[in-house]
Amino acid sequence: MYDLIVIGAGPAGYVGAEHAARMGKKVLLLERDRLGGTCLNCGCIPTKSFLNSAKLYAHARHSEAFGVRVKEVEFDYGVMQARTQKIQETLRNGIAGMMKRHKVEVLSGEAVCLDPNRVEVAGKVYQGSHLLIATGSRPIAPPIPGLADNPRVVDSTGILARPELAEHLLVIGGGVIGIEFASFYSLLGRKVTVIEMLPKICGALDSDLSSILQRKLESRGCAIHLNAKVEKLEGGKVHFTDASGKAVVLEADLVLSAAGRRANLEGFGLENLNLARTRAALTVNEQAQTSVHNVYAAGDLTGRVQLAHFASRQAIVAVHNMFGVKDICREEAIPGVIYGDPELAGVGLSEAQAKERGGKYRVVKMPLAASGRFLAETEGERGLVKAVLGERDEVIGLHVAGSYASEMIGAAALMIELELRASDVQEVVFPHPTVAEIMKEVMFS
Amino acid sequence: MYDLIVIGAGPAGYVGAEHAARMGKKVLLLERDRLGGTCLNCGCIPTKSFLNSAKLYAHARHSEAFGVRVKEVEFDYGVMQARTQKIQETLRNGIAGMMKRHKVEVLSGEAVCLDPNRVEVAGKVYQGSHLLIATGSRPIAPPIPGLADNPRVVDSTGILARPELAEHLLVIGGGVIGIEFASFYSLLGRKVTVIEMLPKICGALDSDLSSILQRKLESRGCAIHLNAKVEKLEGGKVHFTDASGKAVVLEADLVLSAAGRRANLEGFGLENLNLARTRAALTVNEQAQTSVHNVYAAGDLTGRVQLAHFASRQAIVAVHNMFGVKDICREEAIPGVIYGDPELAGVGLSEAQAKERGGKYRVVKMPLAASGRFLAETEGERGLVKAVLGERDEVIGLHVAGSYASEMIGAAALMIELELRASDVQEVVFPHPTVAEIMKEVMFS
Repeated sequence: MYDLIVIGAGPAGYVGAEHAARMGKKVLLLERDRLGGTCLNCGCIPTKSFLNSAKLYAHARHSEAFGVRVKEVEFDYGVMQARTQKIQETLRNGIAGMMKRHKVEVLSGEAVCLDPNRVEVAGKVYQGSHLLIATGSRPIAPPIPGLADNPRVVDSTGILARPELAEHLLVIGGGVIGIEFASFYSLLGRKVTVIEMLPKICGALDSDLSSILQRKLESRGCAIHLNAKVEKLEGGKVHFTDASGKAVVLEADLVLSAAGRRANLEGFGLENLNLARTRAALTVNEQAQTSVHNVYAAGDLTGRVQLAHFASRQAIVAVHNMFGVKDICREEAIPGVIYGDPELAGVGLSEAQAKERGGKYRVVKMPLAASGRFLAETEGERGLVKAVLGERDEVIGLHVAGSYASEMIGAAALMIELELRASDVQEVVFPHPTVAEIMKEVMFS
Repeated sequence: MYDLIVIGAGPAGYVGAEHAARMGKKVLLLERDRLGGTCLNCGCIPTKSFLNSAKLYAHARHSEAFGVRVKEVEFDYGVMQARTQKIQETLRNGIAGMMKRHKVEVLSGEAVCLDPNRVEVAGKVYQGSHLLIATGSRPIAPPIPGLADNPRVVDSTGILARPELAEHLLVIGGGVIGIEFASFYSLLGRKVTVIEMLPKICGALDSDLSSILQRKLESRGCAIHLNAKVEKLEGGKVHFTDASGKAVVLEADLVLSAAGRRANLEGFGLENLNLARTRAALTVNEQAQTSVHNVYAAGDLTGRVQLAHFASRQAIVAVHNMFGVKDICREEAIPGVIYGDPELAGVGLSEAQAKERGGKYRVVKMPLAASGRFLAETEGERGLVKAVLGERDEVIGLHVAGSYASEMIGAAALMIELELRASDVQEVVFPHPTVAEIMKEVMFS
C-alpha cells in the first residue's frame, strides 16, 4: 500500500513524487516512456540546448562590432544533437538518482487505473491511498486537409528527431513552440516562414514584446504571415489565405505543425475513475484536486497554464493538500518565456489582458537602451521593459524583451506574488549595471 | 535660491538631482569633470563593455563543443575601446537629456561650499536650502616603496586610458576591481598575476563563490598569490613575500594598483561646513543626513557600501528625507557582483559573516549543474547557488556563481528586503528552464 501513486514522470509527476517522499510518504512513480516527460525529452530542454548553440553561432558571426574578428564560422548540427542527447541523458539520470535518494519507487510501464485506489501495471495491481494524475499533453494535429500522414510534416517531437535541418522550414502556428523553432532555424541562416491565424505571434504574450521579436525575425529573413489561414497541404506545398484574403501557395521541404497541445486524457484507465472533465481537460480546483477526493491532477492535462514550472508547482500544491498541508495554486504570477533572440519574458497581465479585465490600470515602459549593460552588450538591438500597474499602483504585469529577460523575470514573479506596489519596488536595490535594474527604474515613471 | 544643490554628478548625484526634480524641486547639479562619475567614465560601464567583448572572444574560441566551428579568432582592442567610448558618450548624453527633461540645471566647474547654504562655482555664488554632497571616491595609492610615480604602474582609471593591452599584467589587490581586470586580460589570453594580502580574492564575497572564480582564472593561466605582501617596486619588478614567507620577484610590463578606493573629502570647501567625519568618510545617518541638518551626503564618500547602486539608493533616501518623505537606507540587501567568467553575485550575509555575527543560521547549497539550462549552455563549468537562512528560516544571504548570476540576484535582493522565509520562496514560480530557478530549488534543501 502506497501513500501516493503518481502516473507520469514529467515536471508535474516527478516533482510531486519527490515532494511527497520528502514529506516521508511511500511513493510509486509510473512512467510509460522516459523520465522527465515532454519538457526534458522533446520540449524545453532540447530546444534550449539548440537555441544556445544557434545563438553562439549567430554571435560568433556578428562579433566584429565588439572588436572580435572571426573567420569562417560553421555549425555542425550533428554535434548539437549529440550534445543535446547527452544533456538529456544527464538530466534523466539526475531525476532517477533523485528518486532513488528519496526512496521513490519508479516503475516503467503503461499504467491503468482500476479505481481511485488501484493501478495496474503489466498485470500487477498496486494500491495507493492517493493518486496524482500527471499524464501531460501531446501536440495537436490540426484538421487541415493533407496534413495527417504527410511525410513532409512534423510536430515539435518529430522535428527534434530529424537527423538534418531543412533548407526551408514552414511553421504552422506562431505560438511559443513555433517561434522557438523559427528562431533556431533563422539564427542558423535557414529560410523560415511562419503562418499564424491570429493578428500576432507568441500567443498571449504582451504585443509590445512579440512585435520586437517579430521584427528581429523578419530582419533575419524570416517571413511571418499573420491573420493567415492554412487551407490544405499537398506534400510540401502549403496553401493558405493571407491577411488580405489572397490565396498563396508556398513550398517548404519541412512543415512544422505547431498548433498547440492537447491533454492526454485517453488511456491510463482514467475512464474508470469517473473524474469530472471538460472536452479538453481534467477538472481540478485550486488545490489541484479532481472531483474524486483522493485523486489529484497536475500539469498540462489540467488545462491551466501549459508550462513545466506551473506543472511542478501544481504538483507540489496537490501533494501538500493530499497530506494535510493547506496550499493553493495561484495563476497570477506564472512567468512565460520565449527563448528567442532577443528573449521575451512576461508575468502577470499583458496590457491587452488588463484592458479586457476592465478596472483602473496604467502602463509604464522604458527602452532597454536606458540600461548601461544593455548598451554595452548589444549592437543595434531593441529591448523593452513594460509594467502594468493596478489601481493601488500594485504590479499586476511585468514584461521584458531583451537579453537576460528569462533570468530576470523571477524577480517580477516575486513582485506580483507578493502584491508589491511600484513604490515598494523602487526601494529594492538591483545591482548596477544590469539589465534587470530597469525593472526597478521603470517603476519611477 | 535652489531647493537643492548637488555636488557631484555620479550615480548618487545625478540620481538624487533627478529625483528631487521629479518631486517638483528646483535643483542645481554641479560637476567638475564629466557627467556619470567614476561608474560611467572609468568604472562599471567601461569594464562591462570590455568584459563583454572579452567573453565574446573567449566563447568564439570555445564553441566547438556546442557544434559551432570557428577559424581564426582575433580581437581588436582599438575597436573595443572606440566602442566603449561611444557607449559612454551615449550614456552621458542620456544623463544630460534626463537632467534637461526634468529641468535640473547642470553647471560644469569646481564647487566650493562656503557655508551650508552657499556654494561658489567660478566666482559666482549659488544659494540652496539643501546640499547633497556626492563627491565620490578615487583609487588609493598604497604606500609601497617604488609605486608612486612609477611609469609601469596604473590605477583602474589609468589602465582604461592606455591605448594597448600589456603582455603581462600584474594586479596588486584581488578585490572586485583587480579581479575584473584580471578576468578581462586572461579572457583575452594575456598573462596575469594577482597578488592579494588576504587569504581569498573578491573581498567580502562568499568564499565558495570566490574559490570557483579563482580556479577558473587559474585554469586560464592566471597566477594568484594569496596571503602575499608586496614589499617594493623597481620599475616593472614587483618584490613580494608569498604565503610561505618566501621573497619573490616578478617582472610585469604593467602593474595595476587596485588596493581600494578613498573618499573624496578634500576640496569642495567641505571644511567650511564643519561636518562630522571619520578619517576615511563623511558621517551620515540612515537618512543620509550629515551632522548639519540641511546637508546630506550619498555615495562612496559616506564610507558605507562602495557601489553605484547603493549610492543611487542613498541619494534618493537623502532627497526623500530633506523634502519630508520618511525613508531609510538599509544595507542588508545590497547586492554585489563580479562580472568575471563565471559571474559571481551575492546579497546579504556570506556564510563567514553569518558565523561571525553569531546566532542560529543554516546554509543550503546546490550545484548549478542541477539546472537544465546551465547544463545546456555550459561545458565543464562549475556553478553554485548558496543560501544562508536565519533562525526563522528567513533568507539572510543568497550567493550565486555562474552564468546570469548578476541578472538573477535582484530576486534575491527582494527576498532579503522583504524578509521572506525559505517556505515563501518555495511558492514563487520561476520559469523553467532557467538558471534562476535554482534560487528557489535550493530552498527545498
